[in-house]
Parts: sequence; C-alpha cells; structure tokens
Amino acid sequence: MTNQNPVFIPGPTNIPEVLRKAVDMPTIDHRSPVFGEILHPALEGVKKVLKTVKGQIFVFPSTGTGGWETAISNTLSPGDKVLATRNGMFSHRWIDMCQRHGLDVQVVTQEWGGGVPADKFEEILTADKEHRIKVVLATHNETATGVKSDIAAVRRALDAAGHPAMLFVDGVSSIGSMDFRMDEWGVDIAVTGSQKGFMLPPGLAIVGVSPKAMEATETAKLPRTFFDIRDMAKGYANNGYPYTPPVGLLNGLNLSTRMLLDEGLENVFARHHRIAEGVRQAIAAWGMQLCALRPELYSDSVSAIRVPEGFDANLVVSHALEAYGIAFGTGLGDVAGKVFRIGHLGSLTDVMALSGIATAEMVMADLGLPVALGSGVAAAQEHYRQSAAALKKAA
Amino acid sequence: MTNQNPVFIPGPTNIPEVLRKAVDMPTIDHRSPVFGEILHPALEGVKKVLKTVKGQIFVFPSTGTGGWETAISNTLSPGDKVLATRNGMFSHRWIDMCQRHGLDVQVVTQEWGGGVPADKFEEILTADKEHRIKVVLATHNETATGVKSDIAAVRRALDAAGHPAMLFVDGVSSIGSMDFRMDEWGVDIAVTGSQKGFMLPPGLAIVGVSPKAMEATETAKLPRTFFDIRDMAKGYANNGYPYTPPVGLLNGLNLSTRMLLDEGLENVFARHHRIAEGVRQAIAAWGMQLCALRPELYSDSVSAIRVPEGFDANLVVSHALEAYGIAFGTGLGDVAGKVFRIGHLGSLTDVMALSGIATAEMVMADLGLPVALGSGVAAAQEHYRQSAAALKKAA
Amino acid sequence: MTNQNPVFIPGPTNIPEVLRKAVDMPTIDHRSPVFGEILHPALEGVKKVLKTVKGQIFVFPSTGTGGWETAISNTLSPGDKVLATRNGMFSHRWIDMCQRHGLDVQVVTQEWGGGVPADKFEEILTADKEHRIKVVLATHNETATGVKSDIAAVRRALDAAGHPAMLFVDGVSSIGSMDFRMDEWGVDIAVTGSQKGFMLPPGLAIVGVSPKAMEATETAKLPRTFFDIRDMAKGYANNGYPYTPPVGLLNGLNLSTRMLLDEGLENVFARHHRIAEGVRQAIAAWGMQLCALRPELYSDSVSAIRVPEGFDANLVVSHALEAYGIAFGTGLGDVAGKVFRIGHLGSLTDVMALSGIATAEMVMADLGLPVALGSGVAAAQEHYRQSAAALKKAA
Amino acid sequence: MTNQNPVFIPGPTNIPEVLRKAVDMPTIDHRSPVFGEILHPALEGVKKVLKTVKGQIFVFPSTGTGGWETAISNTLSPGDKVLATRNGMFSHRWIDMCQRHGLDVQVVTQEWGGGVPADKFEEILTADKEHRIKVVLATHNETATGVKSDIAAVRRALDAAGHPAMLFVDGVSSIGSMDFRMDEWGVDIAVTGSQKGFMLPPGLAIVGVSPKAMEATETAKLPRTFFDIRDMAKGYANNGYPYTPPVGLLNGLNLSTRMLLDEGLENVFARHHRIAEGVRQAIAAWGMQLCALRPELYSDSVSAIRVPEGFDANLVVSHALEAYGIAFGTGLGDVAGKVFRIGHLGSLTDVMALSGIATAEMVMADLGLPVALGSGVAAAQEHYRQSAAALKKAA
Repeated sequence: MTNQNPVFIPGPTNIPEVLRKAVDMPTIDHRSPVFGEILHPALEGVKKVLKTVKGQIFVFPSTGTGGWETAISNTLSPGDKVLATRNGMFSHRWIDMCQRHGLDVQVVTQEWGGGVPADKFEEILTADKEHRIKVVLATHNETATGVKSDIAAVRRALDAAGHPAMLFVDGVSSIGSMDFRMDEWGVDIAVTGSQKGFMLPPGLAIVGVSPKAMEATETAKLPRTFFDIRDMAKGYANNGYPYTPPVGLLNGLNLSTRMLLDEGLENVFARHHRIAEGVRQAIAAWGMQLCALRPELYSDSVSAIRVPEGFDANLVVSHALEAYGIAFGTGLGDVAGKVFRIGHLGSLTDVMALSGIATAEMVMADLGLPVALGSGVAAAQEHYRQSAAALKKAA
Repeated sequence: MTNQNPVFIPGPTNIPEVLRKAVDMPTIDHRSPVFGEILHPALEGVKKVLKTVKGQIFVFPSTGTGGWETAISNTLSPGDKVLATRNGMFSHRWIDMCQRHGLDVQVVTQEWGGGVPADKFEEILTADKEHRIKVVLATHNETATGVKSDIAAVRRALDAAGHPAMLFVDGVSSIGSMDFRMDEWGVDIAVTGSQKGFMLPPGLAIVGVSPKAMEATETAKLPRTFFDIRDMAKGYANNGYPYTPPVGLLNGLNLSTRMLLDEGLENVFARHHRIAEGVRQAIAAWGMQLCALRPELYSDSVSAIRVPEGFDANLVVSHALEAYGIAFGTGLGDVAGKVFRIGHLGSLTDVMALSGIATAEMVMADLGLPVALGSGVAAAQEHYRQSAAALKKAA
Repeated sequence: MTNQNPVFIPGPTNIPEVLRKAVDMPTIDHRSPVFGEILHPALEGVKKVLKTVKGQIFVFPSTGTGGWETAISNTLSPGDKVLATRNGMFSHRWIDMCQRHGLDVQVVTQEWGGGVPADKFEEILTADKEHRIKVVLATHNETATGVKSDIAAVRRALDAAGHPAMLFVDGVSSIGSMDFRMDEWGVDIAVTGSQKGFMLPPGLAIVGVSPKAMEATETAKLPRTFFDIRDMAKGYANNGYPYTPPVGLLNGLNLSTRMLLDEGLENVFARHHRIAEGVRQAIAAWGMQLCALRPELYSDSVSAIRVPEGFDANLVVSHALEAYGIAFGTGLGDVAGKVFRIGHLGSLTDVMALSGIATAEMVMADLGLPVALGSGVAAAQEHYRQSAAALKKAA
Repeated sequence: MTNQNPVFIPGPTNIPEVLRKAVDMPTIDHRSPVFGEILHPALEGVKKVLKTVKGQIFVFPSTGTGGWETAISNTLSPGDKVLATRNGMFSHRWIDMCQRHGLDVQVVTQEWGGGVPADKFEEILTADKEHRIKVVLATHNETATGVKSDIAAVRRALDAAGHPAMLFVDGVSSIGSMDFRMDEWGVDIAVTGSQKGFMLPPGLAIVGVSPKAMEATETAKLPRTFFDIRDMAKGYANNGYPYTPPVGLLNGLNLSTRMLLDEGLENVFARHHRIAEGVRQAIAAWGMQLCALRPELYSDSVSAIRVPEGFDANLVVSHALEAYGIAFGTGLGDVAGKVFRIGHLGSLTDVMALSGIATAEMVMADLGLPVALGSGVAAAQEHYRQSAAALKKAA
C-alpha cells in the first residue's frame, strides 16, 4: 500500500509516527470526562498556534472547505456583500461557495501568481461609504500558486478605509507552517484543516472566531446546523459536541499543537523557510521560474513551478508517480498544465526534500526538459549545509 | 488512555483490530489512481450493505448529522413541507435541523418508546391531496430509546396514500446491524455514519440517494456547498473528491463493508439479534423494563432500560464509569434520568456482552437497586449457550 | 484475526494499548545514542521492579527459558551440583535443562500443587558439609499449578544451613504481578520474561544478577556466547549490545516499568490480588478446588482448577475456544487433563475477569459439569464490589 | 522519536508499513490452532526463500548470533574441528564463538575486503585425509566489508576434495536480498535473522537445516536447550514451540515471505542490485573506493566505502546523525575508522537511496573531503533513470 517514499503534495502531509499513534485510538465514551481532557487542551493549543487570545476555536469533523462554510454561514445573510480576490483555485472556490450561498461577491481580478491586492481592497473599501461590504475574504496562502499574501496589509487597508467589515482568512496551507497572527492582524475568522501544518490526517475543519464574528452569528440568517458554532460552543461548555466528535483526530490535534508549541512557533516557521528555500535554490539552478510573481509572495509551504511554454506540466506529476512512486501536485484551474507543485510543509526534513528534488530532476530529464541531473540537488545541498551549520552555531 | 474494557455505548462501537489498522494509513496522494482503488470499492460495498442497486452512495467527512443536512439541503427549498414524528432525541434533532433550514415540518407527536406511526402518516398523506409534503422523515432506529421502527410500513403508508413524497430514513444506528432494504422499502435517502454498524471511528457521513432524490437536487434551493452531492458525484467520476477526502476512513470503510459482506448480512443481523436478546434476557431477569413499548420495537443495536421511578438513571452511568471503568449510555432528552442504555452493536461478542451485564449488576447493587448479582448474567448465559449450540448445529 | 475478547492464559497477557504502540517502533540506528536513552532507563526500571539495588540487569532477545540458560551457563561448570524441587512443569523443565547441560541435579520430589520445600532444602543443605551444592533453584510461581512458593523461606533455609550456594529464582510468572524482593531475599539470579507481568509481547529474557553471581561468571566453564552476560555487560557500557538488540521490545520495557512504578508496586500487587481473589471466590462458589494445596500457596497470577475425577479438563479449554472464542490454559505434565487454568495477570480488570468467569460457567454447563450459571459470577461480583468500594474509600 | 528519514544502516532495515502492522498483534493463545496457521506458512515461506526443498526451518526468538550458536551447538562436540576464514567482523565473531564453545578452528587468514578463499579451502580439505574437519564455515555476505562470497565455489571445493564436512553459511545480510540456493549449493545450515532481507524488526534467528545436519544433532555433545532443534521440531509437529513463541514476529515473517515470493525472488534480487548499483555509481563519481576488493565481491545489500588515509571514517557517521539525522554504518574491527557503510537492503527505493547519497555528499563536504555536491547524486540518478526505463520496457 505504500513504498515508504515521502509525499510532496501540498497536503495532506507526511504524518509523524507519534501523530499517527495519537489518532489511532480505541473507542472511548465521548460523553465521559476523558473526552474533555482531550478536547480542551486541543482547543487551547490551536489558540496559541493562531496567536489569538481573544478568539474562540471550533473544530468540526470536516475539511477546510467546511471551515469556509462555517465562516460564512454563521455570520452572513443571503444578499450580504463580500469582497474577495480570485488569485488561485482556492480563492476561486471560496468565492464560488459564497455565490452559491446567495452572497453578493465583489471579485477583484488578479493574476494567478499575484497576492491579495491590499491596495485595490483599500480603494474599494474606502469607496464603500455605506459599509455594504460585510466581509473581506483573503487566502493567506494560495496552495494552487504557491503565493503567500500579506494579511497585515489587508488589515491596514481595512483600517485605512475606516471600514468595519470583518476579515476572514483561509489559512489552510499556512497555519502551523508560516507566521499567522490572528489578533494582531485583526482576523475575524481564520480557517484551517488538520492535514497541513498540523500534520494530521484530513478530517478536521479548524476555525478561529473573533468576538466580533461571534456577535455576527446572532443576526446571520444563512441556514446552518452541522456547522453552527453556537451549538458547538454549547457542546464545548459541557465537554462535548452536538454530535459524535472525531475523538482520535482531536487527540492528534492535542498532541500536534503541543509538538509545534514545544518546538517553538518561530522555530517551526524557520524550519519551513529553510526547507522551502532549498527547494527554491534548486528551481533557480534548473533555470525555472516560480508561479509566484515576486519573492515576497513565495510560500514556505508549497512551490508551484512553471514549465516551459508548450510543455504539459501534468506529465511531470504522472511520470513521477509511475516511474518513481513520488507524488507531486498538479496545477489547478488557470494554471493547470502550466505548473507542477512541490509541497514542502509539515514533517519534512532537508534529507527528504533532497529526495524530492532529485526525483523532479530525473523526471524532467526523462521527459526531455533541459535540466542537468544533480544541479538542483547541489544548489539545495549547499543551502542546507550552510543553514545546518548556522543552526548548529546558534544552538 | 484505555483500560482495555469494551465500551457499551450505542456507538461509536468497539473497533476491530483490522479496521483500526486499515484506517491508520500513511499519507497517499488522494489525486493519484490509488485513491480510486480505495474509494470505488468502498462505495460499492456500502451499496450492498444498504441493499440498493439503483441508489448512489456519497460519503462526506462529517457525521450522521451532516448526513441529515446533506439529505435535506440537496433536495428541498425553503418553505418546503416535510412530515416527521418525534419519538426520541435523534428524530427530535432532525426535525430541529429542518426548522432551522426554513422547512415547514409537520410533526406527529409520539410517545418516546413508540415507533414511527405509519398509520398516522398514512392518514396525513392521504389528506394531503395537493402533495405539499415533499419528504417523509423516519428514524429507523431511535438510539435514544432503543426503538426500531417499521420502515416497510412507512413505505406502505406512502403507497396506500398514493403520495409522491420522498422517504428519507435515518439509519445511523441500524445500518450494518439490522436489516435495511433501501430499494425494497423505496427509501429515497438513507443516512448513516462510520461509527456504528461499520465499526469505524467517527468521521464519515454515509448517504444513499435514490434516482428520484438525485433529480430533486436539480431544483432544490437550500444552499449547500460542502454537502453538495452533485459536486461529490463529479468528484467521484474523476476518482476524487471536491476537497480533501478522508482517505484512511474510506480505506476502513472499504474493508468494513467487505467484512460485513463476507460474513453475510443475514449472519450479521442474526449475530446482533443473538447478542441483543441475551441483554434483554438479563433485563427481564432483573425485573426491569425496556423503554421500547413492544417487542416488535426492540432494537438489536441498543437497549434503553427504565429505572424505577424516583431513581436517577444517570447515576448508573456515572458510577459504572467511576467504579468499573465501563461506559454505558445516558438517557437523552425526554427520557434523561429515566433510562440508561446498553449499546450492543458492532464488534461485540457474547463474552463481552456478559461483562457489560455483570457490570450493570454490580452498579445497580452498589446503588441500592433490587437486582440480584448474577441473575441477569445467568439468564444471558442460558441464552448464549443455547444459541451457540444451535449455531454450531446449523454449521 | 482477533475477536477482541481478552485472553485468560497465564501469559502472554493482554497487552495495553500504550505498550503495543511503544513496541511498534520504526527502525532506529541501534548504534546511535538514541538507543542508550531507551536501554538504560529500561534496565533501571527493571531493577526497581525486582527490588534490587546491588543487582545488574541483562535483557536478551529470547524468552524465560533463555533466561534459565543464561543463569546456569554463566555461573556453572559441567558436573556442578544444583538442588531443586520438581513441583510443576516449569520447575521440571529447568531441571531437565540443567541435566542436559551436564549438571548434577539433586531433585526433591514434591507433589504438584505443593510449593518449594524449604525445610527439606534446609536439611539437605545442612548435610552438604563440603558445599558441593553450588546453586539452589526455586520457581517462585509455578505457572502450571498456580502455586506461589515462599522464596524468603528458601533464603532462610540457606542461611540456617550456613550454606554458600547461590539462589536462582524463576520469577517468570510472578515478577511484576506479585511481590519479589531480590536483595532482601538474597536472590542471586532472578529470571523473567517480557510477556507476563511486564504485559509485553514475548521476546525478552530478563535476568537480574547479584554481585556474587557476577563473580561466578569468571570461573564458570559451561560454554555460552549468545547468553554471555560479560559480553552483554560490555555492550551496555557502550550503550549497545553484542548483537542486534530488540529495540522495540526494549522501548516497551522502558514504558512498562515506568507504568508499574508510577502505579506503585504495592498497588500493582494489590490489584493482582484483588482480581485473583474474585476468581477464587468464583471457583469456591462452583464447589471446585484449586490445584494449589493451601491458601498460602495461592498464586495471584494464575489459578489451576481441578476438575472432577474422570472428566477431561482439556475439554474445558477446547470448548471455550471453539464455542466462545476464549482462551484458558490447559493442564501441563502431571496435571494434564486434571486441571484447567485461568490466567489473571497483567492488564486485566475486574470487568474482564468477570467475562472469563462467566465463560467458564457456560463451558462447564455445556460439558455437563454441575455448575450453576451465574453462581461464580455472583461470588466474584460481590468481591469486586466490596473491594472497589474499599479502594474508593482509601483513595 | 523519529524524523521519518529512512535509515541507511545495513540492517535492521526500514520496515514496510504492512509488516509493522503484521508484527503488532494483540495477544492470541499460542497453544490454540490459530498459531499453527501462522507458524507453518511462515516456515514454508522461509524454505522457498532459502531455495530448499530438503531442508527444515527453525525459527528462534533470538538473533543471527543465536542462529550461529544453534548451528554449532546442535551438530558438534567439544574438540571438533571446523574450517573458517576471517575476512570481516562477522566471520571473526563466529570463529570466536566456536572457540568459546571448545571447537578447534582452523582459520585461514584473509584480507578484509576479500572473500571466502575457496581455493585455499580446497587445498586444506584435500589435505585433511582423515576428515577431521567436521564443518566449513562461510559468511555469504560480510556486512562489515560489503563483500559477497561465492558459496557455490566453496561447495565445489568440498566436492573437489571429496570431503564430507558440512557447510554452514551465515546468510544474515544476504538472504532475501541476494540469491541464496541452499539445496543447489549443498548448504547444511543456513543462518539468518528477521531484520535484514525479511524487513522485520530484530528478534528472530532463522535457521535452515539439511537432513545431514539433522542427523548430526543425534551425536553432537555440545550442550543446548534453548537452541535445541530437536525440541523445536517436536514443538512444530504439535503446532507449538517448546516455550513461548514470538507470535507477532512470526506473523510478520509469514507476510514477509509472501511479499518476497509474490514479488518473485529474482525480481527482489534485481531490485537490490539496481539500488546498490546506483550507490556504487555515486561512490565512483566521488572518486572513492569500496572496501570490497573486486567487482565480483560487491555486495548488493551494503557498501563499505574507504575514506582517504588519515581521515576518520567515524566522523562521517557521527556528523550525518548530528547534522542531518541520517544513520550510516560505522566501520567495525580491522576497518574501524577506515570505512563507513551505506546499507541498501530491504524496503528501499531509488528515491530513498538518492536521499542517502545526497546526505553523504553534504556530510563529506562539511568534513572537508573533496567531494563535489551533486556529483554522486547525478551518477546515481543516471543509473536509476536508465534502469527504470529498462524495467518499464520489460514490463
């Protein structure tokens, strides 16, 4: 069923041994006090990872998509206006969801590879004198393009416009891998899942909710029951859930957050940056370009690599799987066929990253792309060596 | 974290070793062909367990509650009328969900302990000449009261009334444990979860959808994205999901359905009946009554046991946990404090059942209830002995 | 592969979840420092469980039988004389091993069901003026007969005789379940395995060696390499083994000893006594006798139950397995067919014990033995209830 | 506890997921028929892997070292003469064991890096007119030097000399990875363990015994009990062991042999050769030498790499672990400090091998050795690409 190769998709990530064991629990009674001892530390752990003191955490047996639906269905009413940009597949999907829920989405067009256009947002928000815009949606890390946007800048845009709209952020592929500051950035709802920075199997939507967003639940008219955070809040207050909780995954989340916090969030982010930088050095050595347009947009959890015009990037992914048993990510949506993606988040070492880079080289050589074997590996090795030595010196 | 005692809650059930191992998978690429080899056999297996040829199966990373929401949000529009009875906590909750989604629910009051009133339904349906009722909701097994309703009779009621309403059935705590005939009974949507008859951890909503219900998705106006079965159907056609699938649980579902089908569904149901009957013999020997009003309503997956007037049934549950590390189910809703529940579904042997019965005796004796130690055990032993011998003879 | 029923054999025992996970390790480099961090705490933990400060611990990838061979081959030379009693299958086998290794064994005949005859030993030792006897062998707990012998009395016999012979004790089915005091009793070599009181899978011989026995290794002429404790000692000094160590089992041993010590050894012993006493109350209620001749010989880890004359006890064991999927122990050697055994050591709760007792009742009733269903269960329940209440009061 | 990097020690190897799960079994009754269903197929599977029809298989809870002791103690008597060569650490240790068991070992000196000197053996055997030599010992694969010897040639030497001595072969690090033909080569005892080609955790000594060697057990006078193959044979005949069997590991062995046989032994060997050849290409690209003196001696399970004169090879191993969390093998005995070793056996893919090669490059660069980053990787990539394409073509 597995060949023990790591995966290089941008999530679900490689699951550390201890997390697999934490998730693989025998059945306990989820109405017994034992459950509370799993649930509450998990929620507290997530709060710290989100860097929020004021927010409340809600965890649903679902996925990030369910987290998006939680965000909008608990706080908005049909016809409500939201502002968003479409700069990749995941922002596209969130916009689509809003539209299907009867929301009025003002979409700012953006090149795929670009980030959330905070300046455009500021203009629009400033122009919205009647404050019809209820929510600004932002995707912190566009998994499809490997683009990390500047959420602090979006907050500054809201503030500069003096606009009371809430700020909802999709942090599915950033939280736990790259810095995320819910309180400092004034994020009203942050959405993530279990299968990325938390290094767990898929199956959890994890949502952080500000007091302001909690208030909005009182007037929101979109129907919701499964994703109703007020029901969930009542459940938590009684050490329970409004339905059967995913006990094993919550047990894993409890341990996962402890692991991240024990390592130190800044160390976790630095570790991701180091691994990502090695991958980027390899890409540069191959003479290839990232989909992300500018260095400040480069994601530390996933790199989307543009292939030469006329070449089908999907071949890289399919050949890697067939010939070497390695999973890379395909391009999605507007960049389908134009990019392939290397995920480098979660439990991934420099050594494992090198095996991914080496495989990409073999694959591209097999497919006739002008990539010299060992060239990207050498560039990444150089980076990993230097940074390993620097880490050692620091310690 | 566990004392190796079995649990006696009516789900999540004790998870067989092989299913725990099937769920505990390393990460695979869910966009690779490997995923399809897990997904499709799992869906096919569920079809057979539901005894449907015509229906389509959809599995969401969610719970039974999410399955209810899937059923109504994909097929109905705000203001649509549904007919239901409230005869326990779970039927109550489904009704509540409908109301929160803006549906017009006609509720037939029913004593908790009674079943779905097919005769009343027939009257109402017959009177509904304009066919305003779009859906009839029925809870096959009320987990709160240990009552199994006659779904075939509900179908006969619809047919006798010549009424075109769809029939949606909550089979969460029956499917995989008691006979369920989706096609024969004309069920339009059947809902269950992973953590009961399928003996898996919680985390999956499993939904069977008839062609008629599939058609209804085209006109239904309730908003849905996460639970949209059309998106899901498109995903399946491409061996994928519209979002990250719960691969491990699906792998478990694949194996679980194979286990049930290899054993033979009729044998599975007979096994559940045998274990349940032993529990009921014990209850009778204690001189106690079930919540279920009549023998034909007795559930083979859970027994709710009435305690003497004035005694708090919750004490049985809390004392069992504290003194003996055994989890029974509390009473819920209208029967809170009046019943305690013994779950006897899934991977449970006669030997394990006897340990639950023996514990209940100790607990009740500790709490001063007039139960003779060993009395229920002896009655159950007699039943298990006889039926074991009969099984052997038959084999 | 398993029906989730507990086993009631006198070892290997039911393995707690956390220990299974501790054993199930990915490969590490056993020559790296990580291994020392597993090995040394495991050895220290075993020392505490053996209640020795002076002794050294050696752990071989082997079984208790290998532990016996370790004891004799490291300390004795061909022709050396040892004193032993044969009061069950395991003492018989150790004697046989000595003879096959060319030792001169003086065997004191003893009824199976009796203990080590300390008084006879004293006579013989006193008479051995030339101190030809080098070692006295004693089986602390005869697993075949459920007899616990008084090792302190054997030490007193040696002391009273002023005899310098070493005292080697088989504690395979006592250590970790019943009190064992290596230093206080002057035990020179204590032998056990992983699969009994330590609740691990089989695969380890665990041996405690006094300074006096260590000295004897210098002159002992029996050949040994695999079991040579001097090689092993050198390995340990370098954080290693003379060959590939069983890393996972050692990791389990590390955790197992921590669990026992965290619970408190006296609590562990009291827990075993409580469970055993319930089983004995059941046996008495059935009107049956233990193989152990007198109460002070009753073992807290296993009970061997005599069946009526003319009845084949093996039928109990085979029928239990076939009809109910429950494993009891057969009679061995001289008591084959005359007794069956219920193991009650390791990770076993009162609730699990009751399921074993209930099964034994069904089995005996099926086989026509005059046992009233529920009678033994009721007696055990009464004991467990009372003692649970007493425990609660104490806490 | 683990960073998910593969290990590159020459065993224990990376354990495939399915084998870890097969080993991690709940307790079963090892005296029940279920055990026989695990044991016998495992023994049969080993026979096929050893390519023997006439031989019998014995599996002890032990290690390869215990397998050596099994071989000699069951077939020889004190003073018996054996012929051996010392060409590495493991042949050295087997000789040492023989001497400690009172055997008279004629040692043929051989350079470390050389193979078993079949021609010298032939001379000696021819000269031994009185047939005092009872056994010829040969190490098929010297794990310390990465040298595979020609066992067929040793057999030819025996035949040419017309000598009746038995042939005992240490196949610990060859069996299951490189071709081994017990019957064709006239091997009388073959020894291996669980933790190399069988890809299991350590804990099993696996021994194949020819009819001639079985006969020798009748007259052999070396004492043995734990390792007595006659006791073991009696046990197997009754579906049991003479002591507690390592059930989980045997369950793993059963599955492991099935996996090897399903893949096809020749495919398994070709796979090992392909991976090994990539490592050797990398070594050549680095401008370094193997310890093995000639290509026909190159092992497909481990490569020992000579470092430049004056450089301490142990630094490679310790720095790899500290800086990159990767385990290589140190040099042992005569080549300590002169070589480091890369294990490439068991469950190892080309991709994983590349990560080991890349790490070795970083380590050597860090330590100032004149190795160009990416150079070995590129050579190995070229080999893996070509051979992957060839495999695809063939399939």
